[in-house]
Amino acid sequence: MDDENTVFIGSKETMNYVMALLNQFNSGSDEVVIKARGRAISKAVDVAEITKNRFIETSDITEIVTDTEELEDREGGGTTNVSSIEITMKK
Amino acid sequence: MDDENTVFIGSKETMNYVMALLNQFNSGSDEVVIKARGRAISKAVDVAEITKNRFIETSDITEIVTDTEELEDREGGGTTNVSSIEITMKK
Repeated sequence: MDDENTVFIGSKETMNYVMALLNQFNSGSDEVVIKARGRAISKAVDVAEITKNRFIETSDITEIVTDTEELEDREGGGTTNVSSIEITMKK
Repeated sequence: MDDENTVFIGSKETMNYVMALLNQFNSGSDEVVIKARGRAISKAVDVAEITKNRFIETSDITEIVTDTEELEDREGGGTTNVSSIEITMKK
């Protein structure tokens, strides 16, 4: 899957990402992946739950995968582990 | 599954819950469920990832399920929706 069908969760309000997800579905994607790292993981779950409960009743979560990624420290010299999540949704 | 095999994620440090999970596995449970709501969801993923990467190499996540729960508002009179997650791990 390329990034076209992906919604990356950042620091914006949750509803921004719900709208991005709805746009993906409405522009022809049958499958969209929500990706998040660290504290944004909770928001990724909110986005998936809000979308299927309030906006696209036929949509559902088909897969949830977690992983651990190594990020370079900003100061350099080391790495920090951060958890990540990928939530696959189909409509 | 009863609550004996469940670790509920709250506001303590992440490693407290990793230790609770390790205790469950070491006291004979082959399967443990990590449950969290709201912002604690990110921490639940951290607990699962840290346990399988650093402590029990044979353990793995076998299922991740999300849901939406209705919580009573503290002031009463209404409800608030909150996302939840259940991460099942086997060793």
